[in-house]
Amino acid sequence: MQNTLLHSITSPEDLRLLKPEQLPQLAQELREFIINIVATKEGHLGASLGVVELTIALHYVFNTPEDQLIWDVGHQAYGHKILTGRRNVFHTNRQLDGICGFPKRDESAYDAFGVGHSSTSISAALGMAIASKLKGETEKQHIAVIGDASIASGMAFEGLNHAGVTDANLLVILNDNAIGIDPSVGALKLYLTNVKKGTQKQDNIFEALNFDYSGPIDGHDLDAIISELERLKTVKGPKFLHVISTKGKGLRQAEEDQVKYHAPGKFNSETGELIPKSVSNIPKYQDVFGHTIVELAQKNKAIVGITPAMPTGSSLKYMMDELPDRAFDVGIAEQHAVTLAAGMATQGLIPFCNIYSTFLQRAYDQIIHDVAIQNLPVIFCLDRAGLVGEDGATHHGVYDLSYLRCIPNLIIFAPRNEIELRNIMYTTQLGLPHPIAIRYPRGRGITTDWKQPFEAIEIGTGTILKGGDNIAVLSIGTIAKNVSEAIQNCNKPEAIAHYDLRFVKPLDEHLLHSIFKTYDALITIEDNSVKGGFGSAVLEFAAVHHYKNNITILGIPDLVIDHGSVAELQQQIGLDADSLTTYLNTQL
Amino acid sequence: MQNTLLHSITSPEDLRLLKPEQLPQLAQELREFIINIVATKEGHLGASLGVVELTIALHYVFNTPEDQLIWDVGHQAYGHKILTGRRNVFHTNRQLDGICGFPKRDESAYDAFGVGHSSTSISAALGMAIASKLKGETEKQHIAVIGDASIASGMAFEGLNHAGVTDANLLVILNDNAIGIDPSVGALKLYLTNVKKGTQKQDNIFEALNFDYSGPIDGHDLDAIISELERLKTVKGPKFLHVISTKGKGLRQAEEDQVKYHAPGKFNSETGELIPKSVSNIPKYQDVFGHTIVELAQKNKAIVGITPAMPTGSSLKYMMDELPDRAFDVGIAEQHAVTLAAGMATQGLIPFCNIYSTFLQRAYDQIIHDVAIQNLPVIFCLDRAGLVGEDGATHHGVYDLSYLRCIPNLIIFAPRNEIELRNIMYTTQLGLPHPIAIRYPRGRGITTDWKQPFEAIEIGTGTILKGGDNIAVLSIGTIAKNVSEAIQNCNKPEAIAHYDLRFVKPLDEHLLHSIFKTYDALITIEDNSVKGGFGSAVLEFAAVHHYKNNITILGIPDLVIDHGSVAELQQQIGLDADSLTTYLNTQL
Repeated sequence: MQNTLLHSITSPEDLRLLKPEQLPQLAQELREFIINIVATKEGHLGASLGVVELTIALHYVFNTPEDQLIWDVGHQAYGHKILTGRRNVFHTNRQLDGICGFPKRDESAYDAFGVGHSSTSISAALGMAIASKLKGETEKQHIAVIGDASIASGMAFEGLNHAGVTDANLLVILNDNAIGIDPSVGALKLYLTNVKKGTQKQDNIFEALNFDYSGPIDGHDLDAIISELERLKTVKGPKFLHVISTKGKGLRQAEEDQVKYHAPGKFNSETGELIPKSVSNIPKYQDVFGHTIVELAQKNKAIVGITPAMPTGSSLKYMMDELPDRAFDVGIAEQHAVTLAAGMATQGLIPFCNIYSTFLQRAYDQIIHDVAIQNLPVIFCLDRAGLVGEDGATHHGVYDLSYLRCIPNLIIFAPRNEIELRNIMYTTQLGLPHPIAIRYPRGRGITTDWKQPFEAIEIGTGTILKGGDNIAVLSIGTIAKNVSEAIQNCNKPEAIAHYDLRFVKPLDEHLLHSIFKTYDALITIEDNSVKGGFGSAVLEFAAVHHYKNNITILGIPDLVIDHGSVAELQQQIGLDADSLTTYLNTQL
Repeated sequence: MQNTLLHSITSPEDLRLLKPEQLPQLAQELREFIINIVATKEGHLGASLGVVELTIALHYVFNTPEDQLIWDVGHQAYGHKILTGRRNVFHTNRQLDGICGFPKRDESAYDAFGVGHSSTSISAALGMAIASKLKGETEKQHIAVIGDASIASGMAFEGLNHAGVTDANLLVILNDNAIGIDPSVGALKLYLTNVKKGTQKQDNIFEALNFDYSGPIDGHDLDAIISELERLKTVKGPKFLHVISTKGKGLRQAEEDQVKYHAPGKFNSETGELIPKSVSNIPKYQDVFGHTIVELAQKNKAIVGITPAMPTGSSLKYMMDELPDRAFDVGIAEQHAVTLAAGMATQGLIPFCNIYSTFLQRAYDQIIHDVAIQNLPVIFCLDRAGLVGEDGATHHGVYDLSYLRCIPNLIIFAPRNEIELRNIMYTTQLGLPHPIAIRYPRGRGITTDWKQPFEAIEIGTGTILKGGDNIAVLSIGTIAKNVSEAIQNCNKPEAIAHYDLRFVKPLDEHLLHSIFKTYDALITIEDNSVKGGFGSAVLEFAAVHHYKNNITILGIPDLVIDHGSVAELQQQIGLDADSLTTYLNTQL
C-alpha cells in the first residue's frame, strides 16, 4: 500500500481537510510508517502504536499548535511528530543532530512542553490553562495525555488536586493500557481495572477530585474518540477522559510481548520478528546488578530490592522472579521508593534501592531528609549514571555526583568495572554504618570474566591502575576505560599515572596526599558535571591542605547535552579515548 | 489543678495502667502542660493541642514502642513526646542541646521515624510493616498519623497507592482539621469536606485505593477513638481511619485564629493572648519579598506568584490579598508548583515561585527537567536559605548552592540585604533569558530604609564592599553582615578587603581576575555546605585559570546540624562575627 494519505500531510492543517471516513486509512498508514522506520532505526515502538487513533483524533479536533497538547513522558509521541511536519526527518529520530525521541520545544511549535520524565503533563498544561485565562484567551484548549503508569506518580496527583479546584480549561486524557515500560502496579491500577470491568461504581476517583469525568472509551475507535473530544471541547473547567488502548496495537508481537516491544531494537517490519543483536559475553552492568543481588540475597535474608517501575531496565526482575517476597516494584514513585527503603532500614533490613541516576532527582529530598539525616544504611544503586546516549538531555545522569556530594553521612562510590560493582554490593550488605550511593552506567562492561569470588572493598580507598613519571590522571567510575586507552595511545604512556579513586566520598586522603606530593600536574576525569563533582572534591582537598599543584578538571561541560550515541557524545565533549589522547599529548 | 495524672506517667506503660474514665482528665492536664510550656518557651502549639486525645488513645491502645507510630511532619507530636518520657525536658524543646521540635530517632525509641518535611509517614510505616512481615513479627502494628494538608502531597499518594496492593499491617490515620500551617487547599480537601458534611457518597477515594476505610469519627471523643483503634487492631491489611479534629483545641484563640497560633511565639497561658514581640522597623526578608512582588505585579501584568502551602510564611499572602487571580497557593506540592510555573512561563507569564530552600529539594527534578533544560525564565525565590535555627536538621537550607550549581542555564543569586533582594526581583521581571534562583534567609534584614527606588542589577556582577591590603574575603548573601562586623573588629581591618560576589552563577570573572591578581590569600564565606557550594565555584575558577592563590573555604561543615538559635549555631560552626574575627586575626 502506498502511504498516499500520510504523504499528503505536512501539518495538522492538512489532516483537518480529510473526511472522517478517510481517517482509518490514515491510521493504518501512520502505523505502518512508524513500524517501518523503527524497525531499522530503533526507538520506542509500543507506546506510539497504541495511540495512533488518539493522535489523529487530537490533531483533527483541536487547533494545534494554538491549542496546547502535552504528551506525558513522550514515548508515545512518534505519530504526533510525524503528523506535525517531521515525517521526512523521522528516520533521524534519537540520532546525533536528528530529532529528539521526546517532544521538545526547540524542535517544533507543536511540542508544547518538553518531556522525558513522567507525570509532568498535568502541571504544565494547568500552568498554560491558567495563563490563557489570565490573558483572556478564552478559546484556547489545553490537553494533557497521560498513561496509567504515569498518573499513579505523586506529581500527577498534585496536578490533579490543584486543577480540580480551578476553572481552568484543562482536559486530562488518561491513556490506559495497563502498562508503562513494565506492567503497571498499585492500587490505582487495580481500581482502573475494575472501572474497565464495570465492577467499580461510577462515583470515581477523578470525579471525587472535581473533574468532569467521561469514559472509558475505546482508544482505537476513531469515531468514538472524535465525537467525545468534540463534546469535551465545549465543556468548561477541568475535564477527564478515560481512554482504553492496547500498547503495540497493530503489530501482533508488540501486542503480545509489550515489555520487549516497548523499545525492541531492530526488527523485521513485515513479520515483526526481532533481529538478534550481536551476541556478547560481556554483561550489561544491569545484569551484573540483577544477578549479584540474587546471589547475595539468597545468603543474606535481610536483603530486599526496590525499583520504581524499572524491573526490566534495572534487571531487578531476576530477584522479583527468584525472591518475589523481597523484591518490590513500587511503580513510578521514586519518592516513595526511597522512604520505603528508609523505613525498612530502621527495622534492620538491607534495602538495595535501584533508581536511574536521572530519576533519583525525583527523590532528592527523601535521600537527604529520610535517609542521610537519620544515617540509615540504605544502598542506592544509581543505574544509567553518566551519559545515556539516545534518550538525550532529559535522561543523562550527569548531575548525581554534584547533588549527592553535599549530603552528610552519604558514601559515594563508582565502580570501574563489573567486578568492582559486584564487590561493592557484597561489601555493603556486610553492614555499613552509613547510606551509600553506587553509580554505574547504562550498557555493557568490559570483561567476560566478571563472576569472580567476592572481595570486600575498604570504604574510602582508591587504587592505582598504572604508574607514571609526570602526570597523574584521577578518574572515577567506568570512564577509566577511555582513560586507560588514551594513556596507552598517547605519545609517552610512561609519563602518565592513572588512579581510580573509586570513592567520591569519602575521598582516599592517604592516596591523595601521596599523589599530590608526587605529581605537580593532576587531571581529574569524570562523566559528571564539572560543576561540583569529583573534580571539585579534589580541588577542595587541595585547598584544605594548601597544595598548589596544577589541577585540570575534565567532565561534562555545564551545558544541556542532547541525544546521540554515547560514543558520539563523548567525542563531542572530549571524553572519548581519542580526544583524551590528544589532550594528554598537549600536556606532555 | 495539679497535673497529678500527667506527673505519674513516665512512659506509655504507666498510661496503660489508667482506667478509661481517667483519660479525659489526663487529656485536660496534657493540654494545660503543653500550653504552659509553649507559652513561655515558644514552639508549635495548635497542631499538638488538636491531637491530645488521639495521642493518648494511640499510646493507650497500641504497644509502643514495639508498635511503630509515625507522626507525619511532627508538629503535632508534643503530647507524644511528653507521654513518652520527655515531660521533664520538654521545656528545652527546640533549644540548643534540648529536645528536637520534631520526632527524632536518636532521641527516643518512641520516635519511630524522624520527620520534619511532610508526607513521609505512609511510606516509612509501610516499609516497617513489610519488614515486620518478612521477619515474621505478626503482632506488630504500624501506624502513620497524617494531616489533611500532608496527605494531599504527591508522596503520600505514592505511599497509599503501593500500600493498597500489599497485605501489610498498616493503619493510616488521617487527622483532618482542614488546615496545615495555612488552610488546606485543593480538590481532595473539598472532597474531605463533603465527606464530613455527608454529601459525599460512601464509596470513597481511600476505599478505591483498596484501604479498609472507617470514619469519620470525632478526634476529641476518647471513647470513640479508643474503641475504633481497638477494632482496627484486629483488622488485617491496610486500614484507613478518618478522624476529624480541631487545630488548637482547648485554647479559644488558637481555635479561632489557627494560622497565628500554629506557632504563636510567647503568649499568656491563662488568657491565651499573644505577648507582643519587640517592635522592629527592620523588615523580615519575607515581607520585603511579599510587598515587593505586589509592587512589581501591579505594574507588570505578566507577574504571577506561586507558593506550595506557605502563603503566610513566605508573605505571598500579600499578593493573594491584593491580586488573588495571580497568586496561587497550590498546597504541599513543590513538584507541581515548579512545573506549573514552567507551564506558565511557556505562555509568557513571569512566575515567581517561592519555595523554602529545604522544600525545594522536593522539586529538584522539576527544576532540572522542566525549567532548566527548557531554559524557561522561572524566578525561584528560595526562602529560609542557610541555617533556619530552631526547626533544626530537617529544615536548614544549607544545600541549595551545591545542588543548584550543577544545573545548566540556571542563574544563582543571593542578596546581601533587603535592597538587593528588591532590586534583583525588579531585574528579573524586566525579562531574563534564563531561570534564576534567589536565596535569602529566614528573619529580619539589616536596614530600616529598605524601600528604595528600584535599580537593575547586571547579571553576573559582584561588588566590592571594602578595600584592604592583604587578604580578600569573598562572601555570598546575608552572611556578609557577620563578615563586615568581623573585619571591623579584627586587629587590622585595613588589611582585609571584602567582596560580595552576589552571583554564585555566573561568577563575576572580571572581578575574580582582579581579586586573584591583587591578593595572595582569599577566604570564601557562605552559609551553605562547604561541599560543592560557592567556595568550590571559586576553586573551579582558580583551577581553570591556573591561579595558585591560597584559598580557604568557610561554610557549613559536612555534618548534620541540629537545632538552636541561628546565632548559637553560627557560633558552633564558627560563622558568627566573633568566631570570624578570631579566625581573621590568625590570618593577619
